[in-house]
Amino acid sequence: MLPSHRVADALVTVTADQNPVAGQDVLVRQTDHEFLFGCTGFDRDIPLADQWFELFNFATLPFYWGQFEGEMGRPQTEKLMEMAWFFKDRGVPVKGHPLAWHTLAPDWLLDLNNGEIAAAQVARITREVTDFSGVIDMWDVINEVVIMPIFDKYDNGITHLCRDIGRIPMIRMVFDAARHANPSATLLLNDFDMSAAYECLIEGVLEAGVRIDALGLQSHMHQGYWGEERTLETLDRFSRYGLPIHFTETTIVSGHLMPPEIVDLNDYQIDEWPSTPEGEERQADEIVRHYRTLVGHPAVRAITYWGIQDGEWLGAPGGFVRADGTPKPSYHALRNLVRGEWWLPETTVRTDEEGRLPLRGFKGTYTIEHQGRTGTVNLGNGSTPGGSAIVCELVP
Amino acid sequence: MLPSHRVADALVTVTADQNPVAGQDVLVRQTDHEFLFGCTGFDRDIPLADQWFELFNFATLPFYWGQFEGEMGRPQTEKLMEMAWFFKDRGVPVKGHPLAWHTLAPDWLLDLNNGEIAAAQVARITREVTDFSGVIDMWDVINEVVIMPIFDKYDNGITHLCRDIGRIPMIRMVFDAARHANPSATLLLNDFDMSAAYECLIEGVLEAGVRIDALGLQSHMHQGYWGEERTLETLDRFSRYGLPIHFTETTIVSGHLMPPEIVDLNDYQIDEWPSTPEGEERQADEIVRHYRTLVGHPAVRAITYWGIQDGEWLGAPGGFVRADGTPKPSYHALRNLVRGEWWLPETTVRTDEEGRLPLRGFKGTYTIEHQGRTGTVNLGNGSTPGGSAIVCELVP
Repeated sequence: MLPSHRVADALVTVTADQNPVAGQDVLVRQTDHEFLFGCTGFDRDIPLADQWFELFNFATLPFYWGQFEGEMGRPQTEKLMEMAWFFKDRGVPVKGHPLAWHTLAPDWLLDLNNGEIAAAQVARITREVTDFSGVIDMWDVINEVVIMPIFDKYDNGITHLCRDIGRIPMIRMVFDAARHANPSATLLLNDFDMSAAYECLIEGVLEAGVRIDALGLQSHMHQGYWGEERTLETLDRFSRYGLPIHFTETTIVSGHLMPPEIVDLNDYQIDEWPSTPEGEERQADEIVRHYRTLVGHPAVRAITYWGIQDGEWLGAPGGFVRADGTPKPSYHALRNLVRGEWWLPETTVRTDEEGRLPLRGFKGTYTIEHQGRTGTVNLGNGSTPGGSAIVCELVP
Repeated sequence: MLPSHRVADALVTVTADQNPVAGQDVLVRQTDHEFLFGCTGFDRDIPLADQWFELFNFATLPFYWGQFEGEMGRPQTEKLMEMAWFFKDRGVPVKGHPLAWHTLAPDWLLDLNNGEIAAAQVARITREVTDFSGVIDMWDVINEVVIMPIFDKYDNGITHLCRDIGRIPMIRMVFDAARHANPSATLLLNDFDMSAAYECLIEGVLEAGVRIDALGLQSHMHQGYWGEERTLETLDRFSRYGLPIHFTETTIVSGHLMPPEIVDLNDYQIDEWPSTPEGEERQADEIVRHYRTLVGHPAVRAITYWGIQDGEWLGAPGGFVRADGTPKPSYHALRNLVRGEWWLPETTVRTDEEGRLPLRGFKGTYTIEHQGRTGTVNLGNGSTPGGSAIVCELVP
């Protein structure tokens, strides 16, 4: 049951040395998805690399300014560059998160006036987006602007600035800086507020002529899985703008739920938040329902899960892998989707007398192999529903 | 304890036939406030006219489209014109409420396509604002836009249109129509949503260059008085735009509170919602605190109370006057403010040898009387803190 917008058809002509590979058995293998099945790739995830790459093809790396440049003028560029290459080398695109946010803003901004804070914010964006261009070409440019000017948990320079200049000028400033530093980057606006507030903000930003490449919808579900109805209702509202949607920061726990009265998730920090057998069954079921719902909606281009392993954020049992490194039922459940139901099994196909074979599958990347030679086919949005013609040259 | 921004000083030279009225005892009387102490002036209020005019100097009249023009092409212009003149004749400015709203939109809009709905909305605004120009020069142009495109309690044409064209183009369209029909009118954007959503909407509208003359903040408190802290926090957030603020639709009940779990006030309709002695004491206390807080904030220009008498909306005991027409403690409490603490007592003052007298009082209108002659002085924003010079010519 593949959603039709995720499937493409092509008529592939297989060639070797420009000649059709006619009447031959060739091996067709899917190697990647066009859909971005993402996850954080923070330090702690890297020991779990084998498990990580089984589920995911898209990494989000931490660029929290207060950590990245805790001391003014000493950015952690080298460390992050190494992390980014770790994924890039394995064919996994990387997103940087976030370039502007009031939370985890560096304390040293508080010594600056608003003009200086704005200049520092623009310079930081220009530096990171330039330095990582070609390695990281996707950014959560700004995070949680809905509450940015009224955030009152602690004093910080970004709230000062946003309150002073207003939300839309703030967004315009940071997007302009990122766009200028890397014109081909994919730039996201990201928020946790799924209310009409975020709609109003988006509409204002679009009316103001700021170009947004994709909308990020955070979806931490420490207080319980949203369910299909709420998820679809949310998608319905945010897909009205015709922009690609990324479900960012998804968490579904396999332990007890966070009490409903907690408003800021950061306020719930407990000593032990165990993963339980019942919780793990529930989580696996909800993961399948959630991924099916999102993959089933044509506006969604990416899902970024927030931490492959338990305990990564708020000590919550939100991972696919327990703290001891063993996979949970949710791990197998998601793998069954991304490498099973939504994955073309390795198939041997006989080409016709002109070297052609029909290829139909989940949009993504495929290899065709024959007698030690390999070629690559991208089955994607370029492929027409009626089946486009692609030539695949096999090379040794 | 008058808030200083509500007080003005002037040095008034009293003249008669252009000659100074020197060394004479003259009678100074306040006749009006610059601050708009408003209330609905819906049909049912008019029997209470004596009580109404003791408390209020500003009326809001109902222009709900579905009632005003329940049958397409048959507007209730004559009836509303009569109501508007009732107040206008008594020196009370009138606001029309509202020109565009999804609730109480006429059913016949559902037979139109979105282009036709837009044309009908613009034509309706042009008609009412033109017809009432000079009688009603203040309008709640559009109501509750935050939820307008996602309102799902019942199907209606305005939600269709707003969802189609977006919130800001909708606001631009209706404000343009109203502004064009009466360039000197005061035009309000009004909402009940006091969250960041309304902030985001306002910021988007202002960035888009739509001119708003005042922001309406609804403040129905059927679920309990907000308290000073929440009220000031709300004012703090919405005064950032430098726009005058009207507290519109204020209700404080003198009976039991509506349960906190009710989200839409319209969902709580009960057979009897009595006013109680304890509730009336509480209401009187809260009315004084609420009006003091708002009059104490320089951005607030108007408070519109929603119904002088109990039972006017949702059957709630929200009035200053009980259903039987007797005044509650809140009536006397508010009267003690607007005609007491914030009102210059009738005073006899002796003019100096050049006919001058110093006048210091709550911004508003004053008369000066002497030997059967009367003159009028406006003590308002034009008066400088240092005391401006005003000439007041007394006429027979």
